Amino acid sequence: MAKKIILSGNRPTGRLHWGNYTGALENWVRLQDDYDCYFMVADWHVLTTALDKAKDIRANTREMILDWLGAGLDPERSVLFIQSEIKEHAELYLLFCMLISMGRLERNPTFKEQVRDLNLAGEISFGHLGYPVLQAADILAYRADAVPVGEDQLPHLELTREIARRFNHHFGAILPEPEGLVTKFGRFPGTDGKRMSKSLGNTVDLAAEPDEIRSTLKTAFTDPQRLRRNDPGNPDVCAIYTYYQKFMPQEAELTATECRSAERGCVDCKQRLADGVIEVLAPLRERRARFAADPATVDDIVAAGCDRAREKARETMDLIHDTMQIG
Amino acid sequence: MAKKIILSGNRPTGRLHWGNYTGALENWVRLQDDYDCYFMVADWHVLTTALDKAKDIRANTREMILDWLGAGLDPERSVLFIQSEIKEHAELYLLFCMLISMGRLERNPTFKEQVRDLNLAGEISFGHLGYPVLQAADILAYRADAVPVGEDQLPHLELTREIARRFNHHFGAILPEPEGLVTKFGRFPGTDGKRMSKSLGNTVDLAAEPDEIRSTLKTAFTDPQRLRRNDPGNPDVCAIYTYYQKFMPQEAELTATECRSAERGCVDCKQRLADGVIEVLAPLRERRARFAADPATVDDIVAAGCDRAREKARETMDLIHDTMQIG
Repeated sequence: MAKKIILSGNRPTGRLHWGNYTGALENWVRLQDDYDCYFMVADWHVLTTALDKAKDIRANTREMILDWLGAGLDPERSVLFIQSEIKEHAELYLLFCMLISMGRLERNPTFKEQVRDLNLAGEISFGHLGYPVLQAADILAYRADAVPVGEDQLPHLELTREIARRFNHHFGAILPEPEGLVTKFGRFPGTDGKRMSKSLGNTVDLAAEPDEIRSTLKTAFTDPQRLRRNDPGNPDVCAIYTYYQKFMPQEAELTATECRSAERGCVDCKQRLADGVIEVLAPLRERRARFAADPATVDDIVAAGCDRAREKARETMDLIHDTMQIG
Repeated sequence: MAKKIILSGNRPTGRLHWGNYTGALENWVRLQDDYDCYFMVADWHVLTTALDKAKDIRANTREMILDWLGAGLDPERSVLFIQSEIKEHAELYLLFCMLISMGRLERNPTFKEQVRDLNLAGEISFGHLGYPVLQAADILAYRADAVPVGEDQLPHLELTREIARRFNHHFGAILPEPEGLVTKFGRFPGTDGKRMSKSLGNTVDLAAEPDEIRSTLKTAFTDPQRLRRNDPGNPDVCAIYTYYQKFMPQEAELTATECRSAERGCVDCKQRLADGVIEVLAPLRERRARFAADPATVDDIVAAGCDRAREKARETMDLIHDTMQIG
């Protein structure tokens, strides 16, 4: 029986960090066992909010692809491709623009938040409001059955489902209504204890070299109440402890105990973590380095992925043209 | 020296009528002498306001192309093509969506009028608001130097110019700011004296057969004050008189005189007009009939036009990709 199809993607903003890895990429690597996976570098999406970053998109795309390959996305099984190379997304976007009302898009809660957070009211671009319409095109170009999403992405997926329903109602039932594979991740802290995020400058790159991991962890956030070496600590508020749980789960319990009893000091604790993480991530780092040293192979992988994506998207567009009797 | 490039287009809503001919098509035929002309069947644009008409688009496209060929658009000199066959418009539309603010589009006076006239507030589609953005893509895909427009279309053209400027500012100066070739046409009356418009059911098809012309003109609107054959008439309020001015200008003055003096009655006047128009439009009707009888040739003309359009649009997109460093 044919496997179900999944589509997911990421904006190319450069190297991925531990938060990106635990929040999505690690899950994608697992999903490859059970699904036909399409993983997309969402480069057009960068333009919805940041025109000035256009010039960095190609370099950032390369870094992200290397991170993907390093982490274990397997180009033999999964389709790794670049959105802007598959022009069919743009055509489907244009058609879907006709299927959704202004009011519906303006009520989208994610949009409202972004307008507020980025202080964009009035100067918001037309394409920014259309972000979830482009996302619907990304997903439905492959007639994906499912989309791995965080809970905050569910309203966008609901919009994709609505567009699919509306298309099917107006023209003929050819589009699936993709399900959300909701992945619940605990909040992943940055080195300052806040949510790990590039804009906060509190990240550790997935591809960081051992020295970089050591020095970054040295200054990372721990229990602020633990002022002296002999004070007992509270691991539940400590970023370092979360990293143990994530990367060295077999040592997490002992670490918590020794922290609470002040048996282990923070300096020591961070060193052990650094040693462990460096080891755990070594295979990813090494695989990444091998690909980085062989750009022609990476070019081939991306080109082959784009070809496979294009073929599938064209199949969908042929169906769309027949059903709509246009194009 | 290379000729300047013009782009213009029409939504395919079926056969063209006299108002379409005098308002645009006749002018296009003349423009072919001085410009490199791209004439587009704007089929995607139909979807911005009328999803339910999608099923008629292909048949309506064919009728319109036949009218174009009949009227004298010359596929040897001009590029006749179908918008939805040139996917580059969709990609450029997507990119331009990022370059224009919501506020700017909402202030577009044509949009405001349509929302009011069609009673669409709230349910207006996202693509409808983006109509002038797609128009900008249509025009700039060919880097057109000029666009023949009615005065009411000038605000849309201004938006195209603004998008071109913004692109040039953000990424690099490669797009022209197209000029409007404003064509001032008097209001062209329908057979009921109101503006000729398909939605009012007061049209005469450009391809109408002689019998149809005669019977339609027989019941057409004349001076409502002229109740009896011997009453003097006022040609200035008479649709028939406008048709004389348009199609038989050499007889217009005599007609006005004989109407004012009641020397000529309306029945007679309409018969003379019918005879004259049938003769004047005979070459267009015959040329149209020849093309209609030879669908393979029309297919070839459209396919060749689409190929030429695509080639030019791809040239533009190559420039866009190089300049934006994306895609």
